[in-house]
Amino acid sequence: METTQISKQETFIGKEDLLNHWLGHRNLTRRVIEKFPEKELFEFSVEGMRPFSDMVKELLSIATPGLSGIVKRAEEPFSHDMNMTTKAELLAQWDKETPKIIDLYNQIPAEDFSKPFNLFGEYNFPIKDNILYFIDNEVHHRAQGYVYLRALGIEPPFFWER
Amino acid sequence: METTQISKQETFIGKEDLLNHWLGHRNLTRRVIEKFPEKELFEFSVEGMRPFSDMVKELLSIATPGLSGIVKRAEEPFSHDMNMTTKAELLAQWDKETPKIIDLYNQIPAEDFSKPFNLFGEYNFPIKDNILYFIDNEVHHRAQGYVYLRALGIEPPFFWER
Repeated sequence: METTQISKQETFIGKEDLLNHWLGHRNLTRRVIEKFPEKELFEFSVEGMRPFSDMVKELLSIATPGLSGIVKRAEEPFSHDMNMTTKAELLAQWDKETPKIIDLYNQIPAEDFSKPFNLFGEYNFPIKDNILYFIDNEVHHRAQGYVYLRALGIEPPFFWER
Repeated sequence: METTQISKQETFIGKEDLLNHWLGHRNLTRRVIEKFPEKELFEFSVEGMRPFSDMVKELLSIATPGLSGIVKRAEEPFSHDMNMTTKAELLAQWDKETPKIIDLYNQIPAEDFSKPFNLFGEYNFPIKDNILYFIDNEVHHRAQGYVYLRALGIEPPFFWER
């Protein structure tokens, strides 16, 4: 019923364009990681919040594992525990994930985007909403990184440059 | 050429679903505004940044005027100057914009989403990218509001609740 209804809708954005939109955001997030001094990336935070490195680890633990879960329909829980302690390691991992994200995303048939999936065994939403959540969550945490940079007296990259 | 290419793509998300996605974000942003104490909404900021009220005014000055520009193909510059000095005024304006956003968005023919438009006479991108920018920019500034709330010792709303 839901699926039928959605498939009747006119298109807002196509499959390929949405991937490119996400990859543009990932480029910007990478530049935000680069802007952090090594120590502050792992230690600085605003009260009650995590350092930006922990947010980046969260993003890494969601994107590829989430897409992999969608492709395999595997509802395994995610883990944010990642043993990375330097900016270079975070950036290397960030880059390593990019081709995996592209490959996994492209394996999702477009007709599946409106189908529900219980992501990580916990978030039961249409697959397109799961993917939009990956992107929104990245924009959300990256923006918190912007505030950290400002608080450290560092000019962040322009938001509209992807 | 570009348009032809895009129209061949399979759908990621439909027109109606994207609007609902945005409206969900607007609900959450409204709850973030509500969480701020009156004084801090207009005065608190992290060094070099604006108070959250100014970011909200920016969002208000982009959404309806941007959609209106798209619908009328009017490339007028935007103005962030808005004479609102209380939380109640900001919230009232936020609510007043909602039906306008719905009405204007629904006036955009789906085949136009891939067509370029020079938004505010300044940002020449496909219309869908302009609209995604409105949403991303809202998520971005709202997340900065989250950090302000944390810095003020206030628990922000859950990010995933729309």
